[in-house]
Amino acid sequence: MMQFSDLSRLMLPQSIALVGASDRTGSIGGRTLENLTVHSRYGGAMHLVNPGKKEINGLACVPSVSAIEGELDVAIVAVKADAVLDVLDECAAKRVKFAIVFTSGFGEAGEQGKQAEARMAEIVRASGMRIYGPNCPGLNNINAQLGMTFSPAYQLDRQPGPIGLATQGGGMGRTVLQAMARGIGTGLWCSAGNEVDLEVSDFIHYMATADDIKVIATNLEGIRNGPRFLHACQHAARHGKPVVAMKIGKSEYGIKAAQSHTAAISGTAEINSAVFRELGVIEVDDVDELIDTAALLARGRPTGKEKIAVFCYSGGTAALAADKIGGSGLELARFAEPTLARLREQLPDFAAIDNPVDTTGVVLTNPELGYEALKTVAADPNVDLVLYPIPFDYGDITTKAAQSAVRVQAEIDKPLVVAWMSDKPGQGFPTLAEAGVVPARTVGGAVQALRRYVDHGAWQRSHDAAWTPQLLAPRLPDRQALPAGNVREHEAKGLLQAHGITVPRSTIATSADEAAQVFERLGVPSVAMKVVSAGILHKSDVGGVLLGISSARQAAEAYDTIMSAVGQAAEGQTIDGVLVEEMLTGPFTEIVVGIQRDPAFGPICTVGLGGIAIELFKDVARGMLPLTEARAHALIAQTHAARLLQGFRGKPAMDVEALAQALVRISGLIAAHPEIEQLEINPLAVRPAGQGVVALDALLTVEQEDER
Amino acid sequence: MMQFSDLSRLMLPQSIALVGASDRTGSIGGRTLENLTVHSRYGGAMHLVNPGKKEINGLACVPSVSAIEGELDVAIVAVKADAVLDVLDECAAKRVKFAIVFTSGFGEAGEQGKQAEARMAEIVRASGMRIYGPNCPGLNNINAQLGMTFSPAYQLDRQPGPIGLATQGGGMGRTVLQAMARGIGTGLWCSAGNEVDLEVSDFIHYMATADDIKVIATNLEGIRNGPRFLHACQHAARHGKPVVAMKIGKSEYGIKAAQSHTAAISGTAEINSAVFRELGVIEVDDVDELIDTAALLARGRPTGKEKIAVFCYSGGTAALAADKIGGSGLELARFAEPTLARLREQLPDFAAIDNPVDTTGVVLTNPELGYEALKTVAADPNVDLVLYPIPFDYGDITTKAAQSAVRVQAEIDKPLVVAWMSDKPGQGFPTLAEAGVVPARTVGGAVQALRRYVDHGAWQRSHDAAWTPQLLAPRLPDRQALPAGNVREHEAKGLLQAHGITVPRSTIATSADEAAQVFERLGVPSVAMKVVSAGILHKSDVGGVLLGISSARQAAEAYDTIMSAVGQAAEGQTIDGVLVEEMLTGPFTEIVVGIQRDPAFGPICTVGLGGIAIELFKDVARGMLPLTEARAHALIAQTHAARLLQGFRGKPAMDVEALAQALVRISGLIAAHPEIEQLEINPLAVRPAGQGVVALDALLTVEQEDER
Repeated sequence: MMQFSDLSRLMLPQSIALVGASDRTGSIGGRTLENLTVHSRYGGAMHLVNPGKKEINGLACVPSVSAIEGELDVAIVAVKADAVLDVLDECAAKRVKFAIVFTSGFGEAGEQGKQAEARMAEIVRASGMRIYGPNCPGLNNINAQLGMTFSPAYQLDRQPGPIGLATQGGGMGRTVLQAMARGIGTGLWCSAGNEVDLEVSDFIHYMATADDIKVIATNLEGIRNGPRFLHACQHAARHGKPVVAMKIGKSEYGIKAAQSHTAAISGTAEINSAVFRELGVIEVDDVDELIDTAALLARGRPTGKEKIAVFCYSGGTAALAADKIGGSGLELARFAEPTLARLREQLPDFAAIDNPVDTTGVVLTNPELGYEALKTVAADPNVDLVLYPIPFDYGDITTKAAQSAVRVQAEIDKPLVVAWMSDKPGQGFPTLAEAGVVPARTVGGAVQALRRYVDHGAWQRSHDAAWTPQLLAPRLPDRQALPAGNVREHEAKGLLQAHGITVPRSTIATSADEAAQVFERLGVPSVAMKVVSAGILHKSDVGGVLLGISSARQAAEAYDTIMSAVGQAAEGQTIDGVLVEEMLTGPFTEIVVGIQRDPAFGPICTVGLGGIAIELFKDVARGMLPLTEARAHALIAQTHAARLLQGFRGKPAMDVEALAQALVRISGLIAAHPEIEQLEINPLAVRPAGQGVVALDALLTVEQEDER
Repeated sequence: MMQFSDLSRLMLPQSIALVGASDRTGSIGGRTLENLTVHSRYGGAMHLVNPGKKEINGLACVPSVSAIEGELDVAIVAVKADAVLDVLDECAAKRVKFAIVFTSGFGEAGEQGKQAEARMAEIVRASGMRIYGPNCPGLNNINAQLGMTFSPAYQLDRQPGPIGLATQGGGMGRTVLQAMARGIGTGLWCSAGNEVDLEVSDFIHYMATADDIKVIATNLEGIRNGPRFLHACQHAARHGKPVVAMKIGKSEYGIKAAQSHTAAISGTAEINSAVFRELGVIEVDDVDELIDTAALLARGRPTGKEKIAVFCYSGGTAALAADKIGGSGLELARFAEPTLARLREQLPDFAAIDNPVDTTGVVLTNPELGYEALKTVAADPNVDLVLYPIPFDYGDITTKAAQSAVRVQAEIDKPLVVAWMSDKPGQGFPTLAEAGVVPARTVGGAVQALRRYVDHGAWQRSHDAAWTPQLLAPRLPDRQALPAGNVREHEAKGLLQAHGITVPRSTIATSADEAAQVFERLGVPSVAMKVVSAGILHKSDVGGVLLGISSARQAAEAYDTIMSAVGQAAEGQTIDGVLVEEMLTGPFTEIVVGIQRDPAFGPICTVGLGGIAIELFKDVARGMLPLTEARAHALIAQTHAARLLQGFRGKPAMDVEALAQALVRISGLIAAHPEIEQLEINPLAVRPAGQGVVALDALLTVEQEDER
């Protein structure tokens, strides 16, 4: 089991030392002191450390950490870069539990800084003291009214609330804090900069059981330690805390930018996304999406079965909302008959009373009617979520519309999602914000958040809480590993067969005569013939493959043709003969199955349609191992291949069950052989239902002993 | 040539009558009078019509329109629904040029209202008077300070500016007006409600040559008249005015909502999008996108070759921006050497000076440095657009950052796009807005607008201004039309062949012996055999097709097999024999080409990869006819098929030239036969380069005489 330290004394310390306290307003030490003493409500012990001062602002000052009496939960280190290591050594000697290091000029600044960070990591290992930072803005525990930060904006951006935020760089963290202007507070913000020790995963783990946090938001440039991240997210899932994540450094340009910013590893975007999906981490692509999604999850608990009502007084806006809902695959609720009857009474004849509801402007001249009709819609038992787009500010009139929305939200227990579409906030926008009806800024943004909300509910219902991913396992010393390097096709197929995957029958021939004999012995209408050589990876490219050989005589000729072609093209390679292999008859669908190893998340399975589909359309799904049958089916269902396999347009249904079983067996094979670096079965022929699957080609690479 | 009236006297009238003028504040007539006389700067003649008053607010009042002396450019009709037709008759008799009808309760209210609208259309036809409305909020000519509207918000939302806005429903039009809070003004807003006569297309046509309008924005629920829309957009393109369009009623839900709102036809979303793309109409999917895109096009003229610089003081934010740029396929500029040298001087060592630039927070403490570095980047000759995301409000500090952006924008002639990402506007957001540096609200939104801006430049460079679409042509009475109904495959192929499209050689056999003889005569390795019957559309489904027949004996047997299968399955249908057709040998790529007729936009060509690609991945592109070779190539290039045809992954390059020529010929065929309702060639076999294309199957339907 992965170890996570108890961070409660970091988040809620009972004793703090500020090393580098200063009376200079505007200095790091001065601003931190102000945040701690003026803008916080901290009741614990406070020690100031500054060798040049006896007291600062009336508080006693000691020359060093070692001079402090009593235990220290947190030492805040706000000294120059060249003094940091000495202070940390002193803190470790003093048995300080946590050191928060603001100072920059370390890993982000070059080689010398990286060495200093390595020393910090050593201090952590040797002493058990945990380090938060360096190069970080500190820790804002807004719900506890404690600002261990030098930010001059601390006092301005501190609305308590249900969002817990874990970031690396600080910039966009503050963007999330400032969503308070939309009525959603971030109660805890951890931003550990260069993450020499404590990292995003530690904060997610803490927030998973923090009572004041309902939703965890994170903004990541890279995941330093895949397994820790997995465990932290699974911990959050077990405690029903949604994690909403924005990963930056996805594109080539973004990776470059992220690397120049921090030293974090930027994993492949596709693999990160696949891992997020499996862990139920809700991936978003911009800060506004992070806010919209986290805010909605803080306001309700999704089931995955939500049906939506659209309520609006502008017909065009209602149509836009309906488009966004339809386009995202969400479902509009069918109103119950009493709802329709009541709306017919309440609204004029020319209103559209069926979902989406277009009340027409009548509710603008009669706000009470607007409240009543909205309440009628929101109270419908078939309605789980209400979307109310307000297209423009119309002074008092839209302020009253906003007030109606606030009133209705107070009376119902399902989220009412308002989209305030205008750039003019008027009084309506702040009315909604102040009441915590966090308005979205666009209909598209609101619907995207609804989609993610519903999807998360579906994930929570369906995911297998007991499943734990198979990470990069150590080699097992007591068993035979596969030989390193490229494994020859027939050997790879032998391994597949040993793990229960059907492969075509075949025999290696070492002469033309033998090839003819093998053909006869196989007794099949046609065979494929492929050169056998560990040195030749791309057999077709050197003329090493002939297909559709349908007589013994042809087989003999083919042998000679292949040997001659390969002999010229692949000089110096050892040729072990030619594989004579039965060719599959009857219909089948070509599926590609691949296993690759991600340094952070272990073996990843890729599955998708073969042929042009995989190359042109990238129609693949990815998942972590181990695969269960349910997980294998879920993976297949993510691809277009699923529709094809189900019996598309009059074609026969193919053996999806056998495909899922094969994926589980491949998963088992990888677990048994952690030394496998890469496996690709292309194609895996999926035959009609009941007839199973056959691995027609296999590429297998085993790592060298010294690669780990 | 399509006729468009001169609307200048509607937009800038010299004489106005307000029919239904009222002294009751808050009434439609009263508010309109206030807008015209208090909130407008209108210098022309103003006549008030109200049979019950001698004067209103000191202005003389006449009992009827006929009592007015002199010519009338515009009559504003603000009377009850049952009085509207009489007033319009009177206006027509008076030779009023334009009538603006506010009154609702017509087409949107039911059958009786629709009949009244038909009467209005008759008045237009008979008199030449043009009608704007009914059921509309009026016309806001903000640049001319003239509000012919009853809206109480007229006086609030009137910032002059370069955007011309044409809408149907009014709601989201006001959302666009309120983008003035971001610093972009809408100078003219036309919203003709039920569009009984004047419609969005007329306003686009007017704005195309209006000097005060730089960009045309429109928000459409349906396009009433395809040809008028085409002509208006082409007119705008000829005058270099970009048209940005949001089409609502795209999804099933949205169509339902739009139909309950207005009576406009909602065309197929895919066809609308294809038409927009061809006309250079920039399609957007939400109101914020409409604003971001229109505002950017009002601030610069794209070339399609823009390279972008990202400037930011937060590394994470820079990485997000870089991701968005990379993800959207835009290109980051490579800074010139002097730029890099100057940035190295200006910024600290730990800043990232290469594009994307991360200045680090140093510019926050030294705003002048922020200005200088931004100026350095913006002045780089390789930089065409600058993206400056500001992640949070930081009080004075970010206000100064905004001021620097304003300063730099004033000094350079390329658009500086600022994304103000925070929900707190601070003073920075209004600083940017007031200076006209229309801030986007998200990085994603800013980059999406950049993408559309650059794409529009590319369209402007490459589009063929001389091309005019082929609309639904009338039947030519003097020539032989094809017989109505389903055309038999061999006849369809005959027509293709007559238009220069190669088809396989074939002959109809009417007996088993004849089938054997035809096989021998064709002298090919194998043939396909297909039943010939106009009554059987899906020949395969009834056992009417056999493939791969490779001997005369097999051909004779196949004949009997087909006749017996079809005889049972398609009882009562006339069977004309069995087509014996050569089968293509050698490699080819299956392409699908279809022609369908859109009621608004005429014949539309669909082209895409055949096989599973078209069914699973909907990998098709659509275009209006006629096709030139350049347009055909452009269409092909929109599909994934293009990559495959170019010689994908070591496969041979296919005959794309021949495919493009075939598309042009099919286009000619459709022009010659306007009676064709539908044509589908599936597949059109595209052979290796130089070997041409062959139509392997063809489905052709001809409309009945009485369908038009």
